[in-house]
Amino acid sequence: MKLAELGEFRLIDVLSKTVDDSRDSQLPQQKNIVIGIGDDTAAWKNTRGITLATTDCLVENIHFRQGQTSWRDLGWKALAVNLSDIAAMGGTPEHALVTIGLPHDLEMEPVIDLYKGILEAGNTFGVAIAGGDTTSSKTIFISITLTGSSGKQMLKRSSARPGDLIAVTGHPGMAAAGFKLINGKLGNSEFDSPLKQAFLRPYPRIAEGNVILSAGGRTAIDISDGLMADLQHICGSSGTGACIHTDLIPIHPAVRKAFPSQALDLALGGGEDYELLFAADAGVIEKVRKRTATEVTIIGEITAGPASVVRAVDANGSPYQLENTGWEHFGKF
Amino acid sequence: MKLAELGEFRLIDVLSKTVDDSRDSQLPQQKNIVIGIGDDTAAWKNTRGITLATTDCLVENIHFRQGQTSWRDLGWKALAVNLSDIAAMGGTPEHALVTIGLPHDLEMEPVIDLYKGILEAGNTFGVAIAGGDTTSSKTIFISITLTGSSGKQMLKRSSARPGDLIAVTGHPGMAAAGFKLINGKLGNSEFDSPLKQAFLRPYPRIAEGNVILSAGGRTAIDISDGLMADLQHICGSSGTGACIHTDLIPIHPAVRKAFPSQALDLALGGGEDYELLFAADAGVIEKVRKRTATEVTIIGEITAGPASVVRAVDANGSPYQLENTGWEHFGKF
Repeated sequence: MKLAELGEFRLIDVLSKTVDDSRDSQLPQQKNIVIGIGDDTAAWKNTRGITLATTDCLVENIHFRQGQTSWRDLGWKALAVNLSDIAAMGGTPEHALVTIGLPHDLEMEPVIDLYKGILEAGNTFGVAIAGGDTTSSKTIFISITLTGSSGKQMLKRSSARPGDLIAVTGHPGMAAAGFKLINGKLGNSEFDSPLKQAFLRPYPRIAEGNVILSAGGRTAIDISDGLMADLQHICGSSGTGACIHTDLIPIHPAVRKAFPSQALDLALGGGEDYELLFAADAGVIEKVRKRTATEVTIIGEITAGPASVVRAVDANGSPYQLENTGWEHFGKF
Repeated sequence: MKLAELGEFRLIDVLSKTVDDSRDSQLPQQKNIVIGIGDDTAAWKNTRGITLATTDCLVENIHFRQGQTSWRDLGWKALAVNLSDIAAMGGTPEHALVTIGLPHDLEMEPVIDLYKGILEAGNTFGVAIAGGDTTSSKTIFISITLTGSSGKQMLKRSSARPGDLIAVTGHPGMAAAGFKLINGKLGNSEFDSPLKQAFLRPYPRIAEGNVILSAGGRTAIDISDGLMADLQHICGSSGTGACIHTDLIPIHPAVRKAFPSQALDLALGGGEDYELLFAADAGVIEKVRKRTATEVTIIGEITAGPASVVRAVDANGSPYQLENTGWEHFGKF
């Protein structure tokens, strides 16, 4: 079967199984893994607590196109998508290794701008660039590995319980709307700029992740794949269902203005938002609200079942059918 | 200036300077970096000792060609080149994150074989695969980040002193000879198999790195770029010169047989060997020899100067001029 037919998530399942089947479970390094493949980051124990590690890659013509982003923004985003994974664990980012593949006929200046963007994000969020690799490649890619730390507790995908409320930071759908504007060469009004920015230069929710964890939250994910798709990841890992109320989704006015008929679908199905979706009881969510200036909105609840099924209902309780749930890197493999 | 004119090593210099200029030196994460860009791995302090981290990437048509390697060997090598960097620090490998970029029309089976090769190397050297990323990409690439640990001491590039002897493990040049055989579609005798294996499935010198460090060694590098080029990296970092005696180079009989007139140049200039080159006094080298079954050969000495200049002399003391010193990913950027 070709990867295009399999899709990214099933590919990850197959590779996880390959790792499970082939690994040596007696290895000390295997035994101290707290979280392996299948969460926002990996995590392993050491004497000072938990080390988090994540890796995320941006590939030309899959995640970005030359000419549609500045090199500096591209560098910022390459680190930001990794920071978002640390945020989704409630962790603190620490060190990054940066691998870049570049065509031999590229000029030096864009590469320096790319690095400056990475460093800007690093300085903003307390990350030191410790090393990396450079290589020639026909296709441009930026692959960053980011480490971080957490105490004994972390925000996981697998800890949702029926009765938990589901909340989201910020305004999902902004990045997907920005992507549509950029890709369709639409919207150059001042009003569109926050949407394009949301796509080109996402701001990872590190502080909010820390707040959710310290407020007693246990379950979170970043919505890089889209709200519904990522909620399904939580349900799949937790063995629960979920129900979303479409009238509660905090759609940004700029999204409504730019795409009136598609705004809800962009909010539910669009990816690349890097907001946090979390499940907790009402008391925890109230504490989170008090401790951050970021908008936090309750949009639904975790249900006992059916397992791995995320339903969306409108204000009347009627089922709402999304056109597209999530994207896999702007298309299938 | 285009990257092709600049070359990989100067690109790394420029990017290192960009990092130095832009980083926030007050960051705690910056302050605990022991080794940043410019050694085999990065290293930072934590309460249990030193964390090592390295990342190395194999790119299609730069580091490998489909059809010239099995997918399983490719997976092994992708982890092995990272293991070699940990070996060059005298460290112990721990956890790996694996990022793969794959074209959408690739079949599933080769991807599983690739992973099995990574896992085989992981199980052999005590590495747990903790996570990773998969993405669509026209150009196939495998980017692995590997962490490890060491005590307070590490093998560095910067600690060579005039008077140190220079030693090398194994037989440099085997991988370069293997690469020539594979690429020229030459040599299918049994005699050629170890050469092809040396290129396709390098065996990182983890145990030997540990022995060099415990025997009192302080200076090492893996010769992935070629013996002369990597010795120059040591001299550049240490502010020393070096002199190599060509008659002492341990050339493998299979290399001599396959490439009689080029054998010495392959040993001095060929890359991808993943042997360890180290500088130490005679007593340390003798201890290393006693503690490993791997061949260890003294091939020259570190000199006071001229700084960063590596000379090669023949048995009569006459200068020996290499045709090509090292390669940069089988060619320039």
